Amino acid sequence: MPKKYQIAVIGPAGPEEYPKEQRPDNSVYEQAFRIGELLAKENCIVVTGGKSGIMSTAAEGAKTVPHSVTVGVVKGDKRFTANEFIDVEIVSGAIADGLDEYQIITMCDGVILLGGGAGTLEEVAIAYRQEKPIVALAGTGGWADKIAGTCLDERQRIRIESAGSPEEAVTKLMSTLHHRPNSS
Amino acid sequence: MPKKYQIAVIGPAGPEEYPKEQRPDNSVYEQAFRIGELLAKENCIVVTGGKSGIMSTAAEGAKTVPHSVTVGVVKGDKRFTANEFIDVEIVSGAIADGLDEYQIITMCDGVILLGGGAGTLEEVAIAYRQEKPIVALAGTGGWADKIAGTCLDERQRIRIESAGSPEEAVTKLMSTLHHRPNSS
Amino acid sequence: MPKKYQIAVIGPAGPEEYPKEQRPDNSVYEQAFRIGELLAKENCIVVTGGKSGIMSTAAEGAKTVPHSVTVGVVKGDKRFTANEFIDVEIVSGAIADGLDEYQIITMCDGVILLGGGAGTLEEVAIAYRQEKPIVALAGTGGWADKIAGTCLDERQRIRIESAGSPEEAVTKLMSTLHHRPNSS
Amino acid sequence: MPKKYQIAVIGPAGPEEYPKEQRPDNSVYEQAFRIGELLAKENCIVVTGGKSGIMSTAAEGAKTVPHSVTVGVVKGDKRFTANEFIDVEIVSGAIADGLDEYQIITMCDGVILLGGGAGTLEEVAIAYRQEKPIVALAGTGGWADKIAGTCLDERQRIRIESAGSPEEAVTKLMSTLHHRPNSS
Repeated sequence: MPKKYQIAVIGPAGPEEYPKEQRPDNSVYEQAFRIGELLAKENCIVVTGGKSGIMSTAAEGAKTVPHSVTVGVVKGDKRFTANEFIDVEIVSGAIADGLDEYQIITMCDGVILLGGGAGTLEEVAIAYRQEKPIVALAGTGGWADKIAGTCLDERQRIRIESAGSPEEAVTKLMSTLHHRPNSS
Repeated sequence: MPKKYQIAVIGPAGPEEYPKEQRPDNSVYEQAFRIGELLAKENCIVVTGGKSGIMSTAAEGAKTVPHSVTVGVVKGDKRFTANEFIDVEIVSGAIADGLDEYQIITMCDGVILLGGGAGTLEEVAIAYRQEKPIVALAGTGGWADKIAGTCLDERQRIRIESAGSPEEAVTKLMSTLHHRPNSS
Repeated sequence: MPKKYQIAVIGPAGPEEYPKEQRPDNSVYEQAFRIGELLAKENCIVVTGGKSGIMSTAAEGAKTVPHSVTVGVVKGDKRFTANEFIDVEIVSGAIADGLDEYQIITMCDGVILLGGGAGTLEEVAIAYRQEKPIVALAGTGGWADKIAGTCLDERQRIRIESAGSPEEAVTKLMSTLHHRPNSS
Repeated sequence: MPKKYQIAVIGPAGPEEYPKEQRPDNSVYEQAFRIGELLAKENCIVVTGGKSGIMSTAAEGAKTVPHSVTVGVVKGDKRFTANEFIDVEIVSGAIADGLDEYQIITMCDGVILLGGGAGTLEEVAIAYRQEKPIVALAGTGGWADKIAGTCLDERQRIRIESAGSPEEAVTKLMSTLHHRPNSS
């Protein structure tokens, strides 16, 4: 049986983590749910930061598909801190911000990006350097909107693709993965 | 639905990695298979180094149980290098020996140990320091036999339990986990 | 004797790493030299990625000051790969891009940024999330120019300061550090 | 100017970390001081865990030599927690036990070992796997006495050398390093 792709879905944590007037639109969380569902239907493993917001809704969407597997990479050294939709919990052991994001990207084959702040930006920068395909969902605000369609530097390792809907994001990513050399 | 325990099964790689006269006995690999199967029946996720030897047979045993999930932590930065029985592949990104073992132990709730050389010893030392329950399968040679029933230092954080069979190893570990505070 | 501050100087590698028409201006490397020198005169330890470009010239500048100490965090598992101006070589053990940058930022008290591509962007994102003071040297191109004077997201953890010269960059950073609680 | 060797000195923390009847003998700390001094005279950089006990006395010994450099790798995400004899503080960012030890060994060219518990054992296991020369000071108790003169497994990657005094330990280690290929 061929191995499954591991896809990172990255973007904002839940609204409780933001000042009231800066909260991501609800539609961002709904689109992450849909992306998780579509990825699981494509037989992908969904990998997130295991916390709230899109990390939870993407995993929840994936778990609507029978026998899907979800992964959460969490900070700290404690088990059982990931959201309820995470099957495999990777405990990073780190207390400093920045390591979990490296672990998420390093284990994945591709990235879908919605909105997002500095943590998301870190993940995109690592994915770009590791030359992993990245698709940004346009209209979701944050760094997704700022960098959709661009390269992150003059080395032009990869171009961050832009998608107008969850369906288009997943289709574009799967297409890129299937045309890569050495894919499973 | 309660979360599953994540259990590391650690011990020797496949016979191809050893000088001919030093190869682990076949029964070690067979016992790792049985341990993987028993852990999966106990609804545990089996975590290994994702390579050959007991890392492969433990995962193979687990995969005989429908809908079980197996995890492999692999060295390097390449995807799709884990053995065929691994569902979730954690790519450590490391080329230096020693990091994968830390990642395996840090994400697990307990450890079962068969035989084993210096890599296994590193894992046991980390598990001991993180105060995670460890059960050594007696009669499997290597470090398992040397440290079964002992503490690793005078701090006596935990005692490494000894078990005479795969069944006893899994039963002892599950019993310890169920009696711990903060278990799932 | 009070401990020294550890300051990361980050930005582009040497011109040999870029396509000919995209090479950073020589003045970027000269300014990194000056920043290294000024930091060492302020009794700081200069920390870089240990390779070429500003990682080399910043360390070279620091080493013009007697008894200064320079640190390089390098990829891979080999010793003695850092440039000749590095005293202490931290070998990350990683082959995947992204970990060294985390290690540089996590050990530092502040960051000075010149030009820079995706690796520099990753470092700034981590520093921002760890709430470490960041000063961008204006006019050096790359991400330094794009993010000088901004916050990286709506959480507004810290503002990336802008400086017009190496002198101003070092002065601003030292001033911020001296006004922080818990400084040495 | 040739680069300096980086040597890890590993062993027990200070007596305050042990139950009263289990405290390491004072002579262990004194020997670590002497080892630090001798290594610095050999132009080596002394690397330790940056805490109390031999991590402090080895660094203190090194700092009696003018212009010597000492390094401490510390747990957590806080700066300025290493002992007063540490020049360069590497903040691991980890809260889980086990990562700092990997970082110490991965950046070093050789290891000297006194006494020691499970953390020291972890470090020796990693050094053995990375094939870095290890010298154990005999008569210092703990794991140093248990593994002096042995190999850690049947792969026999390296033999852990035994030394009867700080002078012999440093002489043996320097001799091994100078006879290695690719030494500086």
